[in-house]
Amino acid sequence: MSKVYNIKGVKLGCASSNTRYGKRNDSLVITLDEKSTISGKFTSNSFKAAPIKVALKNLTSLVPGRKALLINAGNANAATGLKGINDVKKYCKEISSLLEINATNVIPFSTGVIGEPLPTSKYLSAFKEAIPLLSKKNWKPAALSILTTDTKPKLVSREIKIEKKKIAITGFAKGSGMIRPDFATLLSFVFIDGKLNSNSLEKIHSNALSESFEALTVDGDTSPNDSSLLVASGNQENFIKNNSADEKKLEEAVKEVFEELANLLAKDAEGATKRILVNVSQAKSQKQAKSVAFTVAESPLVKTAMFGNDANWGRILSAIGRDPEINDIDQVSISINGQPMVKKGNLDPKHSEGLATKAVKKKDIEINIKLGLGKAHFKVLTSDLSEDYVLINSDYRS
Amino acid sequence: MSKVYNIKGVKLGCASSNTRYGKRNDSLVITLDEKSTISGKFTSNSFKAAPIKVALKNLTSLVPGRKALLINAGNANAATGLKGINDVKKYCKEISSLLEINATNVIPFSTGVIGEPLPTSKYLSAFKEAIPLLSKKNWKPAALSILTTDTKPKLVSREIKIEKKKIAITGFAKGSGMIRPDFATLLSFVFIDGKLNSNSLEKIHSNALSESFEALTVDGDTSPNDSSLLVASGNQENFIKNNSADEKKLEEAVKEVFEELANLLAKDAEGATKRILVNVSQAKSQKQAKSVAFTVAESPLVKTAMFGNDANWGRILSAIGRDPEINDIDQVSISINGQPMVKKGNLDPKHSEGLATKAVKKKDIEINIKLGLGKAHFKVLTSDLSEDYVLINSDYRS
Repeated sequence: MSKVYNIKGVKLGCASSNTRYGKRNDSLVITLDEKSTISGKFTSNSFKAAPIKVALKNLTSLVPGRKALLINAGNANAATGLKGINDVKKYCKEISSLLEINATNVIPFSTGVIGEPLPTSKYLSAFKEAIPLLSKKNWKPAALSILTTDTKPKLVSREIKIEKKKIAITGFAKGSGMIRPDFATLLSFVFIDGKLNSNSLEKIHSNALSESFEALTVDGDTSPNDSSLLVASGNQENFIKNNSADEKKLEEAVKEVFEELANLLAKDAEGATKRILVNVSQAKSQKQAKSVAFTVAESPLVKTAMFGNDANWGRILSAIGRDPEINDIDQVSISINGQPMVKKGNLDPKHSEGLATKAVKKKDIEINIKLGLGKAHFKVLTSDLSEDYVLINSDYRS
Repeated sequence: MSKVYNIKGVKLGCASSNTRYGKRNDSLVITLDEKSTISGKFTSNSFKAAPIKVALKNLTSLVPGRKALLINAGNANAATGLKGINDVKKYCKEISSLLEINATNVIPFSTGVIGEPLPTSKYLSAFKEAIPLLSKKNWKPAALSILTTDTKPKLVSREIKIEKKKIAITGFAKGSGMIRPDFATLLSFVFIDGKLNSNSLEKIHSNALSESFEALTVDGDTSPNDSSLLVASGNQENFIKNNSADEKKLEEAVKEVFEELANLLAKDAEGATKRILVNVSQAKSQKQAKSVAFTVAESPLVKTAMFGNDANWGRILSAIGRDPEINDIDQVSISINGQPMVKKGNLDPKHSEGLATKAVKKKDIEINIKLGLGKAHFKVLTSDLSEDYVLINSDYRS
């Protein structure tokens, strides 16, 4: 991959707990300078893992000073009751004193199997081992250390120029099943080498999410551990004023980083052989556009057809027709990768089965749906449904 | 299978169109006596196939006299525009004159591939061939003739005694994917050897559906062709008065037939290796119970776990937690086939991984979910998600 830009005051270190993944690094410590600010967004699932509960609390109780993020992969520490909460507090406390960081400034994250007790002392040992390894350069090992069923790390980095300031944005994410927004992103950590006030950071984070992780679905399932963090390093040289034109430029760049991470996630979705963009337009409201886009993107019959290189527009039309926001399909048009399929609710006279089949064989599929009802639109990114998805998910815990 | 009871005045005949399924019978004609009454319920999908549009119209325009049902498998005649409608009218008209039945008394049904023009003359020839074969005994061939991806016919028959009347109920259904209610049943035809007024027949039909096909889901997808017909033969000897105790008894028996058909459909769902009953209780409303039951029943992660003999209650809890009707999982309990999994939102202390794994290996799985919020309940029947589901559905049209 291309150059990875370091972020002022951000250090990363990782080690192995020698549990689920053997000697592979699965425990990550990140430290942040005292000027840094954090925006955290978490799962909408009512079922929340122990670390999420602690993270939510700590983020509202931050005190001036350095901060740390602790991430473990392999065990979600979810549905583990009071013991789970106490386990999190235990390792956060020990690491906070080793790092000489206030305990409420340590934010925990977990990903992995639900419902198994956390092997706390093993992860704690790994976090301890990671501390002397903290370095501003460890982005690639960090991106690798948080993976579970992912086959590839997802690391995105770029530098933008706003007036005379060079601002780096670097982030990484994990997740390949149980991904569906509102939001559900798995774990994602993005860092901006700049100083922003917290309103500005929250706004940029929300807007970036709405067109990336919140418009991405693999199987419609969500997890109790989904978290997205956007961190501003606090670098005073790169101060961006609230509601300025500069802020707008930064927001665009952050959006692009989030979208690229979402793209990488869709490409590496469990068992995916294709990336599918469902683009719904001419809806009477955004609610309608979004509802139809998700219904099509999550239809098992549409997803298996795409896997099988079958331009089966009948299944797409059926999925649209069953959407609760749709009463009428008489104005619906559908095309796949530019090939006409449906016009006004029926087979498009320009449809060619040969060309359609050729179009659907591509690895990148764009399903364009025009509802013919209004002007609203929404795009959702998803993947196909393959035999490997079933294999991976029927065998995950064993 | 056990004895199949004939229904007075109902005759069935089938033949092959020699299209999609070669020489296999795929075209069914059923004739009904003039005293018969019909209740038809159709797909809620806004996308409706041509025969459904004609059937809906004809059922509201019935005239006194004999009636006929025409069913073809292999081509859904959906999204075929005005031509599709004209094709239906054409074969209905020809058959109606051959049978000497009023044209509006002929009700058409189709199932199969969406969006391909109907090979009308071939199905018409098959319907013609079927006419001389009409017989009151042809239940088994009829049940076989309407199948598409089903591996087995679904035929249920029983005789009940109400006072001194012996009343037979016989029905058959097809469908193994694209099954989800509100409702979506594929095709189902059930016949009662009795006389009921139409209010009574409609009521019995709706009530029977709500606990059978409307509580069954395979993949959450629905089709433009889903139809359920409940026919009363008009046999005067078995007259059942509206709102009588006898009507209640008959309703129970019809419900059982519908439930048994739904069970057979769940067992033969595309690629299914298991039948799964999701039983949600202690909900604060039926709406909540139903929503949670469907969310769990349609979760790809829950379905693949069941396929893999993995008692992965974490995925069940995650599915409950993401349901829009749920704000709180702290009172949730889950058991699978009697084995405790979750208590008050966390791992049940009585949980045994060994016993849980043993329990989930069975072919019949009952997931019991107690929400701890109220007294409402709802059950949904579904199947697991296997590699074969993906194989069948990625290869359906080829």
